Amino acid sequence: MIRWAIGIDLGGTAIKAAVVCEERGILTDRTILTETASGPAGIVGQLAALVADLYRLACETLAPADFAGVGVGAPGAVDAVKGVLSYPPNLPGWGIVSLRDELQKLLIANEALSMPVFLDNDANVAAFGEAFYGAGREFRDFLMVTLGTGVGGGIILNRKLYRGTHGTAGEVGFMIIDFEATTLHAGIRGTLESFIGKKGIVDIARRMIEASSSGSCIGKLCDNDFTRLSPIHLERAALEGDEVSLAVWKRVGSILGVGLANVTALMDIRKFVIGGGVAAAGELIFLPALEQLRRSTLPSMHDGLALVPALLGNKAGMYGAAALCFGEP
Amino acid sequence: MIRWAIGIDLGGTAIKAAVVCEERGILTDRTILTETASGPAGIVGQLAALVADLYRLACETLAPADFAGVGVGAPGAVDAVKGVLSYPPNLPGWGIVSLRDELQKLLIANEALSMPVFLDNDANVAAFGEAFYGAGREFRDFLMVTLGTGVGGGIILNRKLYRGTHGTAGEVGFMIIDFEATTLHAGIRGTLESFIGKKGIVDIARRMIEASSSGSCIGKLCDNDFTRLSPIHLERAALEGDEVSLAVWKRVGSILGVGLANVTALMDIRKFVIGGGVAAAGELIFLPALEQLRRSTLPSMHDGLALVPALLGNKAGMYGAAALCFGEP
Repeated sequence: MIRWAIGIDLGGTAIKAAVVCEERGILTDRTILTETASGPAGIVGQLAALVADLYRLACETLAPADFAGVGVGAPGAVDAVKGVLSYPPNLPGWGIVSLRDELQKLLIANEALSMPVFLDNDANVAAFGEAFYGAGREFRDFLMVTLGTGVGGGIILNRKLYRGTHGTAGEVGFMIIDFEATTLHAGIRGTLESFIGKKGIVDIARRMIEASSSGSCIGKLCDNDFTRLSPIHLERAALEGDEVSLAVWKRVGSILGVGLANVTALMDIRKFVIGGGVAAAGELIFLPALEQLRRSTLPSMHDGLALVPALLGNKAGMYGAAALCFGEP
Repeated sequence: MIRWAIGIDLGGTAIKAAVVCEERGILTDRTILTETASGPAGIVGQLAALVADLYRLACETLAPADFAGVGVGAPGAVDAVKGVLSYPPNLPGWGIVSLRDELQKLLIANEALSMPVFLDNDANVAAFGEAFYGAGREFRDFLMVTLGTGVGGGIILNRKLYRGTHGTAGEVGFMIIDFEATTLHAGIRGTLESFIGKKGIVDIARRMIEASSSGSCIGKLCDNDFTRLSPIHLERAALEGDEVSLAVWKRVGSILGVGLANVTALMDIRKFVIGGGVAAAGELIFLPALEQLRRSTLPSMHDGLALVPALLGNKAGMYGAAALCFGEP
């Protein structure tokens, strides 16, 4: 039997939702703006309405029994077993909310839809999406790294999500790679994210531009306002051959490689799927990262090392959330 | 049925072997010097003779069918699936040796003993021993850290050894905690072992003694020959209240805490069993390590964090090797 699910990517700016076929992928999808001002109750209402819309649309061709459930990927700390979302950083006014059960209740009450609901954090869900439908399909074990504002991670072991005892596993951005550094991230010194989260990358770039004698075209790209500097400018400048930008990406990739080396040393994971907006820099990051990863691990750990780009882009969340309903890939 | 096994701890200096009862622990044990000069063939011969001796001794009260097998913990890279030991650092002249199969063959040929043989690396075996018989009995998931000449690790997940895809998991000593450090370990910069392996601890102590204005009694303990300085001197001096030595252990513990924080962030492991000769410094290391571990992780990861001393001392290898024969604890 071909199964279907509704996969939701709940973000601080937008909610993306799709009807996903287990075998064929996304049938149709919708994006709406997150009404952050309306708080948890308002957002759960948005989710329920979105599910009901997509469900009705799909039910022109599908029977209700074809649906395996509704999956939700959410930012912040998620207890997947209890279905609880705590203090999501981009959703102001949330404390500890039983998002899974509240959505399930509302679907029954408002929409007469009785479906199982699954919840996990966005990094895990993206990893699960890539495992099921994307760059991780061939890998039994891998780490998905999301390079964006922050540095997130999701671990797939033996084709299953590895969540850890308390559900907080995969926080690769919080690994400390320079314990005496001055960089801070949530009060912790020298984390991977403090170096190569968006802010860290911009800091590296500023320092390199200041130190450069040959000049850089980056200033032009951000109207000489370095407070507006973002990784996108650095990508464009690097594509134009700007030496400083190329050096910035080389350093960012190299630092990423150090972080991945720790994952290889500890967990013997050798496959890495790299996604997120910053990963658009592609080979500019990937090549130095793989080089550094090899330099930073024992020769006995080199066999099979690989970095590959994520394939699902900003659809990974919807795919992965739906995949939660289908179970293990 | 009560099961028995012979557990062997193969080291560069000594071979320790015991008859172990699954329920009651060690019945009797033997230690012989490792004949490193005789190469792999000679050492496999030593192992076979030792097994035969212990087996005959035990068979005065046990039937051959009571034995689940022979387990061996060995230094260096072990492929547990293939039973191969490659380039053990303290056994000169070894290349890649099918230790498991060669021992099994020799047991049949020389001693007419047909028993299954199990092989794993010493760090994994020590972790398994603590899981079965020691400080890890109450923990579902934990990391065993062995602080000695090097810094080794073995991971227990869901009461099973976590070896990783290629069997190299748990190399906590190779995690990089200061990627721009000048310390090197097997060519890798800023690893945990480069800081708090024996050599790293002695380096920290030398620098602190040089920088100290108040003086230290360490010189006296090593006959003012700092090339002979070892962690044992630092332990003694700390017990005598030597300020510099206390500061050294505080720093060593704190750096250990940084390394453990990476394990918590990545794997959501919150229980740590600390063994090895250097761990004899006890609370001198444990307290600053736990403090640093808490400082270096998110509050959402603090629940359940614990460091406990290993309980089996230098018997962990024999216990764990025997436990390999009994299967999961």
